[in-house]
Amino acid sequence: MRFTSEQRLDDGVLERRFTLGEIPGILWTPASASAPVPLILLGHPPLGLHKMYPRLVARARRSAAEGFAAAAIELPGSGDRPRWAGAEQAQADLRRAMEAGEPVGDEIIDALILPLVDKAVPESQAALDAVLSLHEIGGPVGYSGGVISIGIRLAVVEPRIVAAGLFAGSFVPRTMFEEARKVTIPLHVLLQWDDEGNDRQAALDLFDAFGSKEKTLHANMGGHTGVPQFAGEDAAGFFARHLRQPQAGARRQTGSRR
Amino acid sequence: MRFTSEQRLDDGVLERRFTLGEIPGILWTPASASAPVPLILLGHPPLGLHKMYPRLVARARRSAAEGFAAAAIELPGSGDRPRWAGAEQAQADLRRAMEAGEPVGDEIIDALILPLVDKAVPESQAALDAVLSLHEIGGPVGYSGGVISIGIRLAVVEPRIVAAGLFAGSFVPRTMFEEARKVTIPLHVLLQWDDEGNDRQAALDLFDAFGSKEKTLHANMGGHTGVPQFAGEDAAGFFARHLRQPQAGARRQTGSRR
Repeated sequence: MRFTSEQRLDDGVLERRFTLGEIPGILWTPASASAPVPLILLGHPPLGLHKMYPRLVARARRSAAEGFAAAAIELPGSGDRPRWAGAEQAQADLRRAMEAGEPVGDEIIDALILPLVDKAVPESQAALDAVLSLHEIGGPVGYSGGVISIGIRLAVVEPRIVAAGLFAGSFVPRTMFEEARKVTIPLHVLLQWDDEGNDRQAALDLFDAFGSKEKTLHANMGGHTGVPQFAGEDAAGFFARHLRQPQAGARRQTGSRR
Repeated sequence: MRFTSEQRLDDGVLERRFTLGEIPGILWTPASASAPVPLILLGHPPLGLHKMYPRLVARARRSAAEGFAAAAIELPGSGDRPRWAGAEQAQADLRRAMEAGEPVGDEIIDALILPLVDKAVPESQAALDAVLSLHEIGGPVGYSGGVISIGIRLAVVEPRIVAAGLFAGSFVPRTMFEEARKVTIPLHVLLQWDDEGNDRQAALDLFDAFGSKEKTLHANMGGHTGVPQFAGEDAAGFFARHLRQPQAGARRQTGSRR
């Protein structure tokens, strides 16, 4: 992990760009912290870190206000990272099906999502190795948003992730429903009730499939990009409940700070 | 409205019992308030105020901590109030169907719920008349919990209610789905995903039917009585957003206090 630039944002948050081998990433840490802080790994759609930066930095500032660090890495095939054989074909097939108003077949969804998950999850784990080796970051780790299938796989295979906020707004390969049953960490799932590109019933079925004892679905009105501000605040409360460190000699805080 | 007793709870909340004609009720007001406060009308299942008191007072304390008064009145046919012809028959029919594991027919649900709604809604409106005439209570009014069909009817017919938190955990007559389409105020709907006595799909259909532009569904794991503590905190945030008074000369607070 090599830091390539650093700046202080106006609210004191430290933003550092880094590369991890070939992979660019951004790490945000709170203005001041007296002890190693928890981390939220910020998922995002495969549109490139540059395009996603305004939304990522807003989420990172909110995390920092809660006392958490946040990190995001470029997804495989996004930004300047090389595409792989089949990715552009799957994207073209998806565009064609959606423009024709046809249902998007399982083969297209599998070709689009499964290789992305297979590549992105070990890279996310490598990023966790690197970021958690910094003295100012101690965990535990939450995963938030982005491609839901990446969140599902990470929740199953990565024990350092103790809670996940997922956005039920992407195509989900059928095999991921089986993986969803293996998830046991607390989940906070957002659903936009009128998401244009999303099958509401499939999202409800996926929520039902998760094996977690604590899982909450927050459904709000509006389309894919219309998540209301208060939904973000409820998600922040979820992470505060699950990531806040036990105080030395004090009971673990399970309530929110409201 | 005649006050019959008053006491200060340990957190300073003033609890006053009253009667409104034949109807007993309880009013809670915050320890101190410099201006007339908003009001939350606390709905509850038809088990009697006495039995419901521990849960009601907990909700009232939370409302008071947000700066809101809270009130509850005995439902028609509950506590010491007279039953009406058909009510006990409908309850017996319901018990029989549930014990036999049979589906509960529309006629039973209609006989159980529709007369209750027809009686309870004008009584709730009379209670609002009385409580809002007190100088220390100014509105706006939120409705919270209880029999969801009463909440639906009140949301349609009572303009002083500006926001409602509903619990999708009761039998809902088919005609109430039509009334649900006429609801336009902001809604916060709780659903227990594994509610034993509740049809999950019917609850989702009801949520879909509401005409409100702002409506949020919070689904949590567990049975009818297993609503997690953090769900109550999210509901408190909903009422804080919608009931908090505009400050003199200040912008209306639309954000939560977190």
